[in-house]
Amino acid sequence: MRLSRAFLPTLKETPAEAQIVSHRLMLRAGLVRQTSAGIYAWLPMGWRTLQRVGQIVREEQDRAGAQEILMPTIQSAELWRQSGRYDAYGPEMLRLKDRHEREMLFGPTNEEMVTDIFRSFAKSYRDLPRNLYHIQWKFRDEVRPRFGVMRGREFLMKDAYSFDLTKEGAEHSYRQMLWAYLRTFQRMGLRALPMRADTGPIGGNLSHEFIILAETGESAVFYDADFEQIDWLGADFAPDSVQDMQRCYDLATATYAATDEMHDEAAWARVPEARRRQGRGIEVGHIFYFGTKYSAPMGLSVQGPDGQQVQPEMGSYGIGVSRLVGAIIEANHDEAGIKWPDAVAPFRAAVINLKQGDAACDALCDKIYRALGDDALYDDRAERAGVKFADADLMGHPWQVIVGPRGAAAGMVELKRRMTGERHEVSPEDALGKIRG
Amino acid sequence: MRLSRAFLPTLKETPAEAQIVSHRLMLRAGLVRQTSAGIYAWLPMGWRTLQRVGQIVREEQDRAGAQEILMPTIQSAELWRQSGRYDAYGPEMLRLKDRHEREMLFGPTNEEMVTDIFRSFAKSYRDLPRNLYHIQWKFRDEVRPRFGVMRGREFLMKDAYSFDLTKEGAEHSYRQMLWAYLRTFQRMGLRALPMRADTGPIGGNLSHEFIILAETGESAVFYDADFEQIDWLGADFAPDSVQDMQRCYDLATATYAATDEMHDEAAWARVPEARRRQGRGIEVGHIFYFGTKYSAPMGLSVQGPDGQQVQPEMGSYGIGVSRLVGAIIEANHDEAGIKWPDAVAPFRAAVINLKQGDAACDALCDKIYRALGDDALYDDRAERAGVKFADADLMGHPWQVIVGPRGAAAGMVELKRRMTGERHEVSPEDALGKIRG
Repeated sequence: MRLSRAFLPTLKETPAEAQIVSHRLMLRAGLVRQTSAGIYAWLPMGWRTLQRVGQIVREEQDRAGAQEILMPTIQSAELWRQSGRYDAYGPEMLRLKDRHEREMLFGPTNEEMVTDIFRSFAKSYRDLPRNLYHIQWKFRDEVRPRFGVMRGREFLMKDAYSFDLTKEGAEHSYRQMLWAYLRTFQRMGLRALPMRADTGPIGGNLSHEFIILAETGESAVFYDADFEQIDWLGADFAPDSVQDMQRCYDLATATYAATDEMHDEAAWARVPEARRRQGRGIEVGHIFYFGTKYSAPMGLSVQGPDGQQVQPEMGSYGIGVSRLVGAIIEANHDEAGIKWPDAVAPFRAAVINLKQGDAACDALCDKIYRALGDDALYDDRAERAGVKFADADLMGHPWQVIVGPRGAAAGMVELKRRMTGERHEVSPEDALGKIRG
Repeated sequence: MRLSRAFLPTLKETPAEAQIVSHRLMLRAGLVRQTSAGIYAWLPMGWRTLQRVGQIVREEQDRAGAQEILMPTIQSAELWRQSGRYDAYGPEMLRLKDRHEREMLFGPTNEEMVTDIFRSFAKSYRDLPRNLYHIQWKFRDEVRPRFGVMRGREFLMKDAYSFDLTKEGAEHSYRQMLWAYLRTFQRMGLRALPMRADTGPIGGNLSHEFIILAETGESAVFYDADFEQIDWLGADFAPDSVQDMQRCYDLATATYAATDEMHDEAAWARVPEARRRQGRGIEVGHIFYFGTKYSAPMGLSVQGPDGQQVQPEMGSYGIGVSRLVGAIIEANHDEAGIKWPDAVAPFRAAVINLKQGDAACDALCDKIYRALGDDALYDDRAERAGVKFADADLMGHPWQVIVGPRGAAAGMVELKRRMTGERHEVSPEDALGKIRG
């Protein structure tokens, strides 16, 4: 995309309302704009990032055997009465009435709806196990929305729902999702630690939060530094193997990690002192196993192999997709701006023309831009070099290809790696090779 | 995907509530399930199709120079008061109040919001032209929702908004979108005819509806058969060229096409009798040029080249993305089920194993399924051949690879083309080559 024609409105001033760095940088870099309290429009740069984050989530859900659907945002209150949650849910639920005065709501989560869909089709044990997920906008009417997209009211969530015939099957499904989450966050350049959690309003027996480390995190966390050494992408686990998923779960949960709420001093004392780490963390995912909490009251049952009716064992698995964009920035930034990890960057590279109008610079920039196509943002504006450098650092593209008159004459460019600050003079071909990875 | 593990619930009976064929087939083939009146969950097959339709829309919007953003579903009533539409809009608008009793609404369209976003950033004529679009769920509280996703209450729409400095610029933007629409629909295997239209509640000076032909269409249409000969994908128009876009517009609008509302008997009489066609049509897109209808009351202005403030000329451009799924089925089906055009099919091929458990059949099916990967649905169920054939025809995959014991022994398969019904015995390699196109 050519910056001269793009809608990428950066701000020079730091917006006064933004209390945390990700919110400030998302506003300054033109990723989002607030349209009402806690409700955001995603501008082209932000939307590109949100799509990349969502696509990684999707690929790892698919890999773990979950199947994508899309449930609507507006739900009937009647469904929530069946589970007993309509009255239990507080003012965070956005309730409304349609033109026929029917009570509806903007879904904050989908346990009821997916159970309703599943019960209308599943008749036999052969219809199990299944795991259905969707990536859809939710609404929670927070009393004081803040921290930008980290605690917005309308937010994008991936929520998956598993249905199993037995408790053992449900635990396997739970571990598959835990494995998928470890891979998902690592692919985004994050370390997310699974920590035992209370089950809260979802209910149930077993629950883990996934928390990434960031100074601005909402919770204090305690963890074993060994966790940082585990490479979930390199590990050879097969999602269909019960043994592999058990091994993955054991590996992930044997290493100590806890929020202050669930902190266990006795277990902590057994972690060698040199490996003890304390910090703050941001929750980016939450998984639950809750048995028949919804299948029982909502009348979901299937015929088992012995002819008896069985209520499926269920779990639900959430990832805050829009929240992750903020969390990634919290974990990857400096004074100058964002430092996108490669996998989620809106553009892989900025092409910076230091002398717009100089024939050699224009020709070389055009050539590089054409070669990179949609992966590049071409700064072809009639602006000073300083402005272009500052905007590229602020927007946080992983690579900057800097083209000046002297280099262009010699057929060379400067290639800067935003994450490390390294700069090298290289040929355009070498630059393209590095950017394409 | 293996059908034995998939969540693809087909129905044997025709649902009584479905009045039109696309609604019946979408329910029978397990594409969607109604969750409230006029509100649908998209099941895996339906969701895959919806994504493919949306992706074609996206690619053609990008090609025409529009930039993707994502605006939220919930909007503030205050914005709509600025344009004067809050009170003008009827009971189709879903109005609600948040926990602080602020008046909000579920957006039926986004002229106000995009104008608000644009006015907060655009300061100068250099910030024009721009075209911003999003693909987002909308809500219109129809009094009697019907025809499945064709007239739902929560529906997916692509809406683009152009901002230009001059009337001439705005007309060029309008023509770019007209060109993008002609390409978009042709890529989906549809012929959509642009017809002059009233501007209705959006307001403005110039408007075209895009209407595809289908017997169940809501409007009677009159058109010149010559229109069917024009190949918009083969035509060499450059979207940045004012001349090219004018030529495209002239070509598309010189050929007679009108709904009965706008039918002009005098012009119709000038169409040679042999080329006159009458039929019924379904609206799948609508484009508007409305000048300063929103920029004026909402105070959007930029500094012109001469230092004077100018109110941008605007247009808006909608495509009913979820409606298109129904419209494509209306235009492509037979007694047995759906006949997906290649570009939007949820799976390119079904692999049909006629003898599950036969070593040669299983091995050959596995090989073909592995080669096709995510493009194939493998019917590995322990079902009779007749059930598998009927389901494959119902679901409408463009290709069926049929593997039986005799063929497998000879290393051959039967390849069926759903659109034409043609069947040929071919080698597995030839089948893969044809399916991959």
